[in-house]
Amino acid sequence: MEYSIGPHLAKINSPEELRMLPEDKLPELCQEIRDYIIEVMSSNPGHLAASLGAVELAVAIHYVFNTPSDKLIWDVGHQAYAHKIITGRRDQFPNNRTYGGISGFPRMEESEYDAFGTGHSSTSISAALGMAIAAKLRGDARLQHIAVIGDGAMTAGMAFEAMNHAGSTRANILIILNDNGIAIDRNIGALKEYLAQFTASQTYNKFRNRIWNLLGGDSKYGTNTRHIVKQVGNALKSSLLNRSNLFEAMGFRYFGPVDGHDVVKLSHLLHDLKNIPGPKLLHVITKKGKGLEKAELDPTTYHSPGTFNKETGELDKSSCEEKLPPKYQNVFGKTIIELARNNPRIVGITPAMSTGCSLNLMMEVMPERTFDVGIAEQHAVTFSAGLAAAGMIPFCNIYSSFMQRAFDQAIHDVCLQKLHVVFCLDRAGIVGEDGATHHGAFDLAYFRTIPNLIVSAPLNEKELRNMMYTAQLNGIGPFSIRYPRGRGVLNEWRTPFEAIPIGKGQKLKDGTHLAVLSIGHIGNIASEAIAMLQNEGIDCAHYDMRFLKPIDEDLLHEVFTKFKKVITIEDGTVVGGLGSAVLEFMNDYGYKAQLKRLGIPDRFISHGTIEQLQKECGYDKEGIIKAVKEMM
Amino acid sequence: MEYSIGPHLAKINSPEELRMLPEDKLPELCQEIRDYIIEVMSSNPGHLAASLGAVELAVAIHYVFNTPSDKLIWDVGHQAYAHKIITGRRDQFPNNRTYGGISGFPRMEESEYDAFGTGHSSTSISAALGMAIAAKLRGDARLQHIAVIGDGAMTAGMAFEAMNHAGSTRANILIILNDNGIAIDRNIGALKEYLAQFTASQTYNKFRNRIWNLLGGDSKYGTNTRHIVKQVGNALKSSLLNRSNLFEAMGFRYFGPVDGHDVVKLSHLLHDLKNIPGPKLLHVITKKGKGLEKAELDPTTYHSPGTFNKETGELDKSSCEEKLPPKYQNVFGKTIIELARNNPRIVGITPAMSTGCSLNLMMEVMPERTFDVGIAEQHAVTFSAGLAAAGMIPFCNIYSSFMQRAFDQAIHDVCLQKLHVVFCLDRAGIVGEDGATHHGAFDLAYFRTIPNLIVSAPLNEKELRNMMYTAQLNGIGPFSIRYPRGRGVLNEWRTPFEAIPIGKGQKLKDGTHLAVLSIGHIGNIASEAIAMLQNEGIDCAHYDMRFLKPIDEDLLHEVFTKFKKVITIEDGTVVGGLGSAVLEFMNDYGYKAQLKRLGIPDRFISHGTIEQLQKECGYDKEGIIKAVKEMM
Repeated sequence: MEYSIGPHLAKINSPEELRMLPEDKLPELCQEIRDYIIEVMSSNPGHLAASLGAVELAVAIHYVFNTPSDKLIWDVGHQAYAHKIITGRRDQFPNNRTYGGISGFPRMEESEYDAFGTGHSSTSISAALGMAIAAKLRGDARLQHIAVIGDGAMTAGMAFEAMNHAGSTRANILIILNDNGIAIDRNIGALKEYLAQFTASQTYNKFRNRIWNLLGGDSKYGTNTRHIVKQVGNALKSSLLNRSNLFEAMGFRYFGPVDGHDVVKLSHLLHDLKNIPGPKLLHVITKKGKGLEKAELDPTTYHSPGTFNKETGELDKSSCEEKLPPKYQNVFGKTIIELARNNPRIVGITPAMSTGCSLNLMMEVMPERTFDVGIAEQHAVTFSAGLAAAGMIPFCNIYSSFMQRAFDQAIHDVCLQKLHVVFCLDRAGIVGEDGATHHGAFDLAYFRTIPNLIVSAPLNEKELRNMMYTAQLNGIGPFSIRYPRGRGVLNEWRTPFEAIPIGKGQKLKDGTHLAVLSIGHIGNIASEAIAMLQNEGIDCAHYDMRFLKPIDEDLLHEVFTKFKKVITIEDGTVVGGLGSAVLEFMNDYGYKAQLKRLGIPDRFISHGTIEQLQKECGYDKEGIIKAVKEMM
Repeated sequence: MEYSIGPHLAKINSPEELRMLPEDKLPELCQEIRDYIIEVMSSNPGHLAASLGAVELAVAIHYVFNTPSDKLIWDVGHQAYAHKIITGRRDQFPNNRTYGGISGFPRMEESEYDAFGTGHSSTSISAALGMAIAAKLRGDARLQHIAVIGDGAMTAGMAFEAMNHAGSTRANILIILNDNGIAIDRNIGALKEYLAQFTASQTYNKFRNRIWNLLGGDSKYGTNTRHIVKQVGNALKSSLLNRSNLFEAMGFRYFGPVDGHDVVKLSHLLHDLKNIPGPKLLHVITKKGKGLEKAELDPTTYHSPGTFNKETGELDKSSCEEKLPPKYQNVFGKTIIELARNNPRIVGITPAMSTGCSLNLMMEVMPERTFDVGIAEQHAVTFSAGLAAAGMIPFCNIYSSFMQRAFDQAIHDVCLQKLHVVFCLDRAGIVGEDGATHHGAFDLAYFRTIPNLIVSAPLNEKELRNMMYTAQLNGIGPFSIRYPRGRGVLNEWRTPFEAIPIGKGQKLKDGTHLAVLSIGHIGNIASEAIAMLQNEGIDCAHYDMRFLKPIDEDLLHEVFTKFKKVITIEDGTVVGGLGSAVLEFMNDYGYKAQLKRLGIPDRFISHGTIEQLQKECGYDKEGIIKAVKEMM
């Protein structure tokens, strides 16, 4: 496919070339970049709105700073498309997020301009501080270290931890707060309100005016008033105002707020900031989706919108969309409402993934029982524990890879105290185009190590509903339910609720030659493979484990009594997951059998479609067929 | 042992009885509690200094609030001894932290007054908020929810996440900031500086005076000045001052700072606060170690001091102390200095455990290369990643159970990017008296799931030194070294450095009947058991794995070629740890053998001595002997 590339952009193969451009051409360049992003992404989807909001930032930073010697870190990283385009990856950008193409996130191994890989939020300040202090230790105090972080990412604890540390150092670090009032969903919390108020009121000026008025302007106290106001103003500025700012209280020099789409002014400001040593914060106001009207109006939908019409921004709707099975996230979102209507103890919690996990549906109908706590996984889990300790049944929905952020809280606050929290792990297993940082590869293995926790993975939509139903029954302890990104397999998925016996799997198919044990949605792929093998005369039994913990020992006794060849299949790491649990069982009971463990191998998996990556890992349909045949 | 209990304290078996005491007797009661804590702890050690600092707080809160209906959560929880003593556990207190006795931390299952179990820091605000919101949903808006949190714990990200959420709600929550300027070590960071400055300056009054002086007092602008100042002052108070306070910026109403040892004044204040709805923060200044002069002067040493003379506070020194093998933490602390002297790239990082992990030794001699980042595990790891990305070799020392807080950062920021960070996990395995929240039970299992990470556990002090030496060699990737709480086994431990081949274990003893595979310090206990078995004619081989990942396949081929009976021993969970790794190996290569996995079983282990708990888990010396004999 051919893309139109503007005349300035066509000449820019690196930031050095960018720096040769006259300042007054920067706005034109930004427009060309924006047009290019829109055109490419209209056919090859990605994180549109955030990247459109950060075009001028990317251009201004590379224009002013001496990258790659100066270190630039994009927090989360999905807003860094303009950065990628002007740092030598313009022509690879159409392959963004595709198998073998460039990553949708900064990656150190992809470019020297990607100073630190990102994906999960709120890591940038810690990393930039580490680099700044390393530079200082090496005696190189001139180097600049820049972290660009959104107001959403700023609510995560680790950003605060890093600010608290950085503010007490003299490290040469510039935080650019990219404030668009939006995380993936509307940003929430006190910090957001603070920023909004701060930005709107321009506190200092407002207060200055207030004193002026109080004093009656020029008239009331005569000619001295002007002098008084000026002196009061200076006193304020020098002694109190720096305490009036949250960031200055944390030891940062604060600048802003400024318009993040005025690239020339931004460049001038950054130029000035270069010469100010120590920790600094520049507060930049941007518009998510800038330049594409529909995205500006609905940045949540256009966060990662799929394909669209590049002229109008109109989203493409696949004509068969309606006939496809539902997304698991929507089954969750609709089912929790049904359950919550019947059980007043149920509440829904998510750390800033309400649209992504469809908890926004519950938020619409039961706003007082639904909590988006911002990007704050640790808090989300312990907040859930608190709710449970007071008698509620919180369904805490966190993507599998982000649950890693709250591993300690799951152990220490929920499971140790046997509190009735239901973890719903969306995006579990291979997630596709988001790649290595986002795959839910580890949850089965790390959740399995926690005492008292029930670990489950439903086969399909019906099972997800029943698992959620079961999880909220009285007397059940900590419970986790993991399911993948994307669609299920049932068109008729609104089945009546049935309790699932805890720790009981199910036999999906009898067989004679070999047994396949699968857990979760991947079992559907296994079923297809097994059906194809059947046609070739290979008769596999198929068991859906449903629970990793407690594991169904009765089922396993049956399997190992009957079969000498067994394959386990999981959409997760083979190190410590289902396969290992089955090996532990075999060992505990002295069963001998040939066992093959299919799953994510012990390495990080890059990006591509889910199918491509599962194929790479050897547990797509063909991989399963091959494994069975090899064993036969 | 008989303890002297004061006349007021003798009568108080519950907070109801406390509330019957006349207000003017509260100071006497506090003195009696303090005397009792000092007397008991002089012979049965525990967290002394923190609890001495919180006596008046505990008394005042229970005196004013309607516990247990009102919910009180002690952050971290080791400061809650007075709370335990006045909530029905006075007579059990002498058994504090002992096997079968009460826990050194609040535990829900121990008392209805322990509204939420704690141990790890910074969970209290999240939990209290969850409870407050649950009460609101139940329609019970009168209930009070109190979180007592130290200034050290306030630096952890999850406290900030919780504040950010709470501040945007109208939840009925009172945070009592117990500010003693100390975590376990001296508290650090911008927040601490802010609090210190804030407390010292009383910002508002200071500013008010400054304006007064600016305006020349009464003289310069005549009689109107007083009026002006008053009006300016009011304007300040109403519009700006609430922005001048970090906590008010976060949506909390701020009160204080007040003296945390004036129990009567504290009670009055708490009484007033009861009637103010919404999120509130009371800033209380206390002295860690209050009432024991030596502890006040050196709160770090007296944080958890062992036994001491109850009159003078003088610490007991065991006479044979000097002849014992060193603590592992000191081997770490002294060895990193030796290594850092020879390798300028080495830096040391710890999140608020500098004395506990002995990184304070390096801090004394190389302050510019040693970083205590405060209670901030997530930041500590990503900060280390940033240092490594800029060419340093950070040794990041975090207790095993606190490493759970930075699991995601270890995966996402360090291992995915193959950065040369060395994780040193102190307190790995059973830790003893601190109990369930502090055992390092899971690290082997969860670190094993991470690609690219080298996972090691040295057998003894010499091996720890060599492992640290090996970990800092050029070209090594992410590396973890775990070792237990307490002492090693070698009196002569300052051995010259030798590189250990990555992924290579060692045979400690030949044998014929059975092979024992151990990892880490527990191998010394295994050696003792094996020696005793030898006397009974049972000839066990003993292999020290040294590395869990990559595991030594050559060694395992030798073992499974030679032996049909094998025992694995690890001071960590048997779910997914060494035993499981060995089973995976056996399965991958088709070895059949009888394998017994010894380690921490799949449940939470309570408190007691390390020996008692390892016995309970079945891998103390007797347990190992028994397991071997059963297998024979």
